[in-house]
Amino acid sequence: MSWYQHTFRLPSFKRGFHLITHLIESNVAEIQKVGIGLAHVFIHHTSAGLTLNENADPTVRVDFESHFNKMVPENAPYYRHTYEGSDDMPAHIKASLLGSSVTIPISNGRLNLGTWQGVYLCEHRNHASGRRITVTVQGE
Amino acid sequence: MSWYQHTFRLPSFKRGFHLITHLIESNVAEIQKVGIGLAHVFIHHTSAGLTLNENADPTVRVDFESHFNKMVPENAPYYRHTYEGSDDMPAHIKASLLGSSVTIPISNGRLNLGTWQGVYLCEHRNHASGRRITVTVQGE
Amino acid sequence: MSWYQHTFRLPSFKRGFHLITHLIESNVAEIQKVGIGLAHVFIHHTSAGLTLNENADPTVRVDFESHFNKMVPENAPYYRHTYEGSDDMPAHIKASLLGSSVTIPISNGRLNLGTWQGVYLCEHRNHASGRRITVTVQGE
Repeated sequence: MSWYQHTFRLPSFKRGFHLITHLIESNVAEIQKVGIGLAHVFIHHTSAGLTLNENADPTVRVDFESHFNKMVPENAPYYRHTYEGSDDMPAHIKASLLGSSVTIPISNGRLNLGTWQGVYLCEHRNHASGRRITVTVQGE
Repeated sequence: MSWYQHTFRLPSFKRGFHLITHLIESNVAEIQKVGIGLAHVFIHHTSAGLTLNENADPTVRVDFESHFNKMVPENAPYYRHTYEGSDDMPAHIKASLLGSSVTIPISNGRLNLGTWQGVYLCEHRNHASGRRITVTVQGE
Repeated sequence: MSWYQHTFRLPSFKRGFHLITHLIESNVAEIQKVGIGLAHVFIHHTSAGLTLNENADPTVRVDFESHFNKMVPENAPYYRHTYEGSDDMPAHIKASLLGSSVTIPISNGRLNLGTWQGVYLCEHRNHASGRRITVTVQGE
């Protein structure tokens, strides 16, 4: 049984949905040492999230951005938390809808994702710095 | 400390929300060997999800389907990812809203769910094959 | 490698979003014994949820309540599960949108949350009793 934990900062991404599977794998080489286990990927922020979705066609990620902007609009008349900009309160709500972490099985030294699954960074702010991520790997 | 991991395919379900707690339990007998632990249930797809919700009245699951179809409609004018059918892009968005995995405490050899909690397969495609699931159990 | 698991009941909270990070920490002192690990916080109910979000300005939590009430309204004409009150079916849907658990890295004896992250109880019923929570801590 082994535990590995790495905290690192992603590069800065523009508002939208972005594939970061390769950045998880390159920052956490110990995944390769685990036969059966789990990888927990966590984002230390409240205006960006993580999710798993389609890793091939970039229009899926464009449609995510369009839909979340409609489902959680800016400048809703009922928002009271407005002093950090019109993108801030929607960013908080989107972050909770999508979640702050994903947990992925590890099998035979690899993230055991489906063929079409990738890890998305869900960046909801217009001008965010690189987001801080902690990956915790455990297994045997 | 023990680890168990099983991958299996669910039967094919029609579009909608379906209770699958019993299929998790029957495919992962080792849950009974764990006094304190966790079960991580993961779906290897991007157009279906997993969630926990009410396990008794089937109308709850019918209302889930009605509400998600309204909240994430087909044929939204802003969708660009349309070539896999009108049910495809909404399926991706619903999958991320609900999530690709659930993690459940294990206590005294049982999934420690609330009285009214069950595991739902959230099937968002009209004609899907049986979905692939990996359950990872760890504990002592 | 150690496992700790505690089940406890939160005080009764009114409908809305409430910071409960301190109640997790005070009920699970063993977090302090873990150098690298994970804390899994689970709610045994289907009409309340858990999420991570902004821990400072209370208007964020007020805006969550406003937005979720609009996104998942009471008395939608398509609801069939209505006999437990107009707040019941929306509560089930909100619970699945937000999720039944959060998993948080533990580093050096502390929940390794971001500066602005706190654990929210998402209470969706008008008159709920104290909710039952199980926290499972593992690590080394």
